[in-house]
Amino acid sequence: MGSVRPIDPAVVRDLADVVGPRQVVTDPALVAGYTTDWTGRFAGRSPAVVRPARTEEVAAVLAVCNRRGVRVVPQGGNTGLVGGGVPLEGEIVLSLRRLSEIGEVDHAAAQLIAGAGVPIAAVQAAAVRGGLAYPVDLAARDSATVGGSVATNAGGLHFLRYGGTRERLVGIEAVTADGRVLRHLGGLLKDNTGYDLARLFCGSEGTLGVVTEAALALSPRFDHRVTALLAFGSVSGATEAAAALKRTVDSLEALEVFFDDGLRLVCEAFALRPPFDEEFSGYLLVEAADRADPSDTLSEAIDSLEGVMAVAVASAASRRRELWRYREDHTAAINGVGVPHKLDVTVPLGRLSAFLDEVRVRVHATAPEAQTWLFGHAGDGNVHVNVTGVAPDDDAVDDAVLELVAHHGGSISAEHGIGSAKKRWLHLSRSPEEIAVMRAIKDALDPNGILNPNAVLP
Amino acid sequence: MGSVRPIDPAVVRDLADVVGPRQVVTDPALVAGYTTDWTGRFAGRSPAVVRPARTEEVAAVLAVCNRRGVRVVPQGGNTGLVGGGVPLEGEIVLSLRRLSEIGEVDHAAAQLIAGAGVPIAAVQAAAVRGGLAYPVDLAARDSATVGGSVATNAGGLHFLRYGGTRERLVGIEAVTADGRVLRHLGGLLKDNTGYDLARLFCGSEGTLGVVTEAALALSPRFDHRVTALLAFGSVSGATEAAAALKRTVDSLEALEVFFDDGLRLVCEAFALRPPFDEEFSGYLLVEAADRADPSDTLSEAIDSLEGVMAVAVASAASRRRELWRYREDHTAAINGVGVPHKLDVTVPLGRLSAFLDEVRVRVHATAPEAQTWLFGHAGDGNVHVNVTGVAPDDDAVDDAVLELVAHHGGSISAEHGIGSAKKRWLHLSRSPEEIAVMRAIKDALDPNGILNPNAVLP
Repeated sequence: MGSVRPIDPAVVRDLADVVGPRQVVTDPALVAGYTTDWTGRFAGRSPAVVRPARTEEVAAVLAVCNRRGVRVVPQGGNTGLVGGGVPLEGEIVLSLRRLSEIGEVDHAAAQLIAGAGVPIAAVQAAAVRGGLAYPVDLAARDSATVGGSVATNAGGLHFLRYGGTRERLVGIEAVTADGRVLRHLGGLLKDNTGYDLARLFCGSEGTLGVVTEAALALSPRFDHRVTALLAFGSVSGATEAAAALKRTVDSLEALEVFFDDGLRLVCEAFALRPPFDEEFSGYLLVEAADRADPSDTLSEAIDSLEGVMAVAVASAASRRRELWRYREDHTAAINGVGVPHKLDVTVPLGRLSAFLDEVRVRVHATAPEAQTWLFGHAGDGNVHVNVTGVAPDDDAVDDAVLELVAHHGGSISAEHGIGSAKKRWLHLSRSPEEIAVMRAIKDALDPNGILNPNAVLP
Repeated sequence: MGSVRPIDPAVVRDLADVVGPRQVVTDPALVAGYTTDWTGRFAGRSPAVVRPARTEEVAAVLAVCNRRGVRVVPQGGNTGLVGGGVPLEGEIVLSLRRLSEIGEVDHAAAQLIAGAGVPIAAVQAAAVRGGLAYPVDLAARDSATVGGSVATNAGGLHFLRYGGTRERLVGIEAVTADGRVLRHLGGLLKDNTGYDLARLFCGSEGTLGVVTEAALALSPRFDHRVTALLAFGSVSGATEAAAALKRTVDSLEALEVFFDDGLRLVCEAFALRPPFDEEFSGYLLVEAADRADPSDTLSEAIDSLEGVMAVAVASAASRRRELWRYREDHTAAINGVGVPHKLDVTVPLGRLSAFLDEVRVRVHATAPEAQTWLFGHAGDGNVHVNVTGVAPDDDAVDDAVLELVAHHGGSISAEHGIGSAKKRWLHLSRSPEEIAVMRAIKDALDPNGILNPNAVLP
């Protein structure tokens, strides 16, 4: 981790004046809990963690840091995957977890306002108590926070139907680098009064401002849910069926794709009985949910698909969970093979089938000893490319895969963001002109470069 | 209109080198067609209209203007309502109408790429030819262009279900003030690779860059459609029913509100037979559309509403049109009373009923001789406040209404934008801190201030 450059005692005093001395944590044993991400992949160092409890304190903390040129890494639940919340170069950590107030559900608007430190699971629970749902859902829901999800534009499991955080974000409160508070939390659906700062800050990974509150649009809560697993004789059969289902079934909440090698691995790793007696090339896991039972609608749509070799359908929760395991256990099963290179990419839907074929060839050409595992969200064009059998610090496979993504007009980061880990490939998805404009916006809003200086921009 | 400051012949030569001499229009008789908006309310003056046909020409034109400090007003179909496309201070007009290429429907992605000059109606027609729909629809569809709709974040008639242009925008090509081309048209649904420039440029009214192409998400085309007119004994009865319908009917495409005085005016002006034998206080016009007939779903939802005094339901297109006339003819009927002050505002859904009551009182207190006509999109909280019987240049009523909007946490411009007309009220919807951040972004992207200098920012 290297040595931590000691912090100017005057800065600590100024920060303690704002948040109180107990909330400026400098004890290395306590600071350590904030300097390494949960995967252990990104380890930084920091002289101090500041823990404000209110927006005004965040503003005053940033004003101090901006005046004194102290660099700051904002941090929510620390569940990011690209090192965006880790103080890699000795920055101060600005923890937002104490901004944990959550408002009542506004039933007329079907919205809710939550502080940056509120876990996603708490937003979901509050929505359910109000008879609604918060549809952004991800595995890290108990730790990941509202502020972090806004800063990273978190996508999640139901993106297909509801979009990601940016689509749910109807208002924001954020603090700029120099401590000005931007507050626009009215949650108005139609509001053409100048630039949409909420959507700009969303996905900017803490480089433009620190999110302190968010107004979030909720969704209906559906009591009827059906899951189906479909088998196909080819990769393109599965992707074409995914496209057809997306076109015709409005109640779809998931449209997941995986393949024979991954399914075999999952069944072996967890001693699961395979879903069908035969093996097939490609599989789609489909889930629909609605106010009334969507089984008939889904069955009719499946009946009209071409190339379906086998089908299993489930409505009961226990049987649905069994079907989901074939998809969800991919991550753990692959981790059992070895530490994978994980590439979270999107390609245009029309290129999905070609990409799935070519990426195996490309990885094999680059690293003949490697194994490629593919699964993902077929409805979004989002593929999780996992490669095992390659040294963790060997980037050749990453280069090959991400260049193929760029060749197909895809995105090198579907959900996880750029952080510090993906900066060196940013040029594959964004042009020099785009990067220059992003830099100009960054410099305009944070002229001293104190906000998350290692993230996003090269 | 005042006199036009003559343009430097060297600038004309430089521009002609880019687009050809015929596309630099300086004949005042021809220029006049570009300097007044279609309502006649905003009349400007300009020494020249430049009409590029390709993105590279737009870039070269802007590079010339930026180098020479020549100010530019980008213009699409010139159907704006707030003077945002009119050269009020002798700017050059940059007409984008010749960027009229439109791509094929990408069926896998359900998207389409169109040039800035393509009319909205042409996008809709192309979508229909591809078996889909483009859901942003507005009365000006034949003239309004893709570029203008992106620049102003056009909302339209189906906002309730599909959102506005920002929600349909999945990629953009735009040119910055200094002539750099930003091209990000992949249409990827998940793309967390830095700042979302497309959504920032959307709604920036040509002040940050000139939109040259857009990738637009299409929607399913529904063959089954049903319309209902509901009558209520009170304003709050209508707004509460609107909220309940929005909560329970997923296939809703319209949820329009109007009142007894407006309906009476419409029926008198156009000799229409009233919808019911009795008169009621408030009315909701409801439309649902789906893949299967939504009549039963809608009827069940209406049956479970409280306070419904009378119902008329129609599925046949001719009868549906008759019901729609009660709502759509409001604008023409009010124009028959006198030139109205038109205020297009949003309030939070929970405040809609209170606002509708209070705005009449507020207008009456300000201008006792005035008449207030209210109608709008109840599902979006979007009210069209029309006031007749007040001199066109008397802003006291506008002040009173917009201050009431701000008091309720609303937006002074729901759909039309700020342009030049609403700049003086921008502070009612955006704080000094927000305006300062918008100004910083503007100055970063357009340091010489050549792009639409009279729009949005004070």
